[in-house]
Amino acid sequence: MAASDADAKYELITRRLDEVLGGESIKAILNEGRSPKCYWGTAPTGRPHIGYFVPLAKIADFLRAGVEVKVLLADVHAFLDNLKAPLELVAHRTKYYQHVLLAVFRSLGIPTSKLTFVEGSSYQLSKEYNMDNYRLCAIVSEHDAKKAGAEVVKQVESPLLSGLLYPGLQALDEQYLGVDFQFGGVDQRKIFTFAELYLPRLGYAKRAHLMNPMVPGLGGGKMSSSDPNSKIDFLDPPATIRKKIKSAFCEEGNSENNGVLSFVEAVLIPISQLRIERLEGKTGADSEEGQNATGEQRPFAEEGAPEGTVFSITRKEEFGGSLHYKTFQEMKDDFSAKKLHPKDLKIAVAEAIVKLLEPIQKTFEESEEWKEIEKLAYPDPNAKPDKKKKKEKVYHPPPPGKGKNAKPADGEPAVVPAPPPGSDVVAAAVEVAQGSA
Amino acid sequence: MAASDADAKYELITRRLDEVLGGESIKAILNEGRSPKCYWGTAPTGRPHIGYFVPLAKIADFLRAGVEVKVLLADVHAFLDNLKAPLELVAHRTKYYQHVLLAVFRSLGIPTSKLTFVEGSSYQLSKEYNMDNYRLCAIVSEHDAKKAGAEVVKQVESPLLSGLLYPGLQALDEQYLGVDFQFGGVDQRKIFTFAELYLPRLGYAKRAHLMNPMVPGLGGGKMSSSDPNSKIDFLDPPATIRKKIKSAFCEEGNSENNGVLSFVEAVLIPISQLRIERLEGKTGADSEEGQNATGEQRPFAEEGAPEGTVFSITRKEEFGGSLHYKTFQEMKDDFSAKKLHPKDLKIAVAEAIVKLLEPIQKTFEESEEWKEIEKLAYPDPNAKPDKKKKKEKVYHPPPPGKGKNAKPADGEPAVVPAPPPGSDVVAAAVEVAQGSA
Repeated sequence: MAASDADAKYELITRRLDEVLGGESIKAILNEGRSPKCYWGTAPTGRPHIGYFVPLAKIADFLRAGVEVKVLLADVHAFLDNLKAPLELVAHRTKYYQHVLLAVFRSLGIPTSKLTFVEGSSYQLSKEYNMDNYRLCAIVSEHDAKKAGAEVVKQVESPLLSGLLYPGLQALDEQYLGVDFQFGGVDQRKIFTFAELYLPRLGYAKRAHLMNPMVPGLGGGKMSSSDPNSKIDFLDPPATIRKKIKSAFCEEGNSENNGVLSFVEAVLIPISQLRIERLEGKTGADSEEGQNATGEQRPFAEEGAPEGTVFSITRKEEFGGSLHYKTFQEMKDDFSAKKLHPKDLKIAVAEAIVKLLEPIQKTFEESEEWKEIEKLAYPDPNAKPDKKKKKEKVYHPPPPGKGKNAKPADGEPAVVPAPPPGSDVVAAAVEVAQGSA
Repeated sequence: MAASDADAKYELITRRLDEVLGGESIKAILNEGRSPKCYWGTAPTGRPHIGYFVPLAKIADFLRAGVEVKVLLADVHAFLDNLKAPLELVAHRTKYYQHVLLAVFRSLGIPTSKLTFVEGSSYQLSKEYNMDNYRLCAIVSEHDAKKAGAEVVKQVESPLLSGLLYPGLQALDEQYLGVDFQFGGVDQRKIFTFAELYLPRLGYAKRAHLMNPMVPGLGGGKMSSSDPNSKIDFLDPPATIRKKIKSAFCEEGNSENNGVLSFVEAVLIPISQLRIERLEGKTGADSEEGQNATGEQRPFAEEGAPEGTVFSITRKEEFGGSLHYKTFQEMKDDFSAKKLHPKDLKIAVAEAIVKLLEPIQKTFEESEEWKEIEKLAYPDPNAKPDKKKKKEKVYHPPPPGKGKNAKPADGEPAVVPAPPPGSDVVAAAVEVAQGSA
């Protein structure tokens, strides 16, 4: 491959990343004219939120550079992470995540035929994998395992053994998925360096690691699946989106820890850029990009905005007219200089998100399967249990004094209690384990 | 089953034990007329020593009471315990242990047809087992795992993750081997109570636990595979046995921490009793006991000793004549009262051990397979590497001045270096993992 072509691909693969470890190995693969392989993993736990746009938009870059991308649905990890969720529930959530991810990829115009979805349980319970897990446990100290998981594993008073296993399992995934690099948020850094240290000790190749910056939640803190106010769900209706953005932390002139500005930087502008580049025919190795895309594929620029605009703030003429930005830096500078008011920013961002989610929600509405899975994956905690279906009644004439207007008998069936959570764990465990051969 | 019969069996199963947890469940099985199932496990690491007579003699009691006994050769544990031993070596050691155990059982007259040998790798790498291991890791705290392994797992400065996994794996073994109780030394107590606590949390039955007393080594401390002076190897020749016993710690009048006295109590007298009972036809459910036994099956009593003698000390008439004991207590009392001199005790014990090991060593000498395995399992660290086989020589007449008496050429192949330890780990790991399906 021509050096300039390889360089361009490397630039595309690494743009906007926070950190790259082992980039030389990726360059070497590109220089040989080969396609690097990568994996990005997610554990199907809580409802995925729109923070997922951050890695998914980045995956579009990988595909343009010809990278073979595997998406790991880490169901075993999800189960380990929260034993309160029985395996059956995790199986539903795995399907739910897959629906969401596919819908998001399609809405971004990313051809899903180029992606491989892999469920962790399809290989993480195999003999070879487990023997390697044991081998790893026999050389990894408690101290190193704990250090590696410090930023990712929930830090609780009485830590569980599972938390010590995660870093090793994630390292083994690189080997068993056969990839050249792993991609994730920079919060994974210690897990990644752990993998770089230990895989070679098992006789396996050290992989490269590409890290996205972290994007704060709407409250300014970490975006969290468990705090519904810090994030927007993919299925939140427009009114909810507008309300959440309206109440987000976004202080005039303060561009630090600003979840709204950060979302523009990490999601909306990159998506705008992808769309602009696509309009210019710059989709590199991904010639199918944009085909079969769901929803509008226009950049987040107003009709008639200057060429190269990646984000427009619509504003009435009386308040100075619309603002058009070609880079995030320009926008941030305006915000810091109080030339861009939080209210205007919030309205523009809310409308962009509404547009972004429109095709995803349409796909949801049109998919009976996905709708069914959603109910099973995240049952409404406030839902009243179904009333027991009454037996079909056969009319028997009442005995004297027991007619229609007589007092009802005691012990009438009323509400059926829900089965205790986790009651199916054992059966489901064996079933899932056996079924994933 | 008649209550008296069940009681007798229970008495046999539990005699001489240090502690029984959950004995009621065994009684219940016996009262229903069923046969309890048990397992005893050993990790094939260092060379097994004659301390193994302690659990193995006890297994004779189990068989007499109709217990179905599984012997677990915990090869995965052995590998985890010491990564310096590659899996290939562990496989050799597993075979070596099996040879030793079979030879010992035969020498004790225990019918090996009633025992089931199970290699850990035959099920510990299965999907179901590993899913259960993960489930366990998601509910067991580091603290509990560490506490459980405190007496058994090597306590090192930077503890390894494997040490935290042992207690859980040993608990799962009870479920996967389908037993009613586990048998082991009282040093396993914390591992056993851990299993009693956690198996029910996975939805599995709590098992009973039967514990043998610990027997000190010849130095008075713990009998250890890694300290050759603290123990006698099954293959030690008579001269070595006599030398080791001669130098054992055995202070006149001091019956505490006395490895020589303890061995009489824990091994020699129980074996004598088994033999006396067998002569009396008291072999209970184990009607085949004694058939095909290798070696002499006499109790350790002198010819012409009073009936019921379990141990005799041969002594010349001028030193008071031979001593004959019907119980260990009598012997201990004599020792404490200095009526039995350490020198006389040591000679008697050494001769008893020589006799005990004779049939085992004969089996070894007659088994080319076992001898071959011994070399592979415990290669002599001082052995000189084999010289490279010289190529078959084809005669070429020497050129002038290079005949038989000319100076040898430089670069003659001499000694082939041994392969680096562990060089086959990866290949062997996959091989063993795959081969154990």
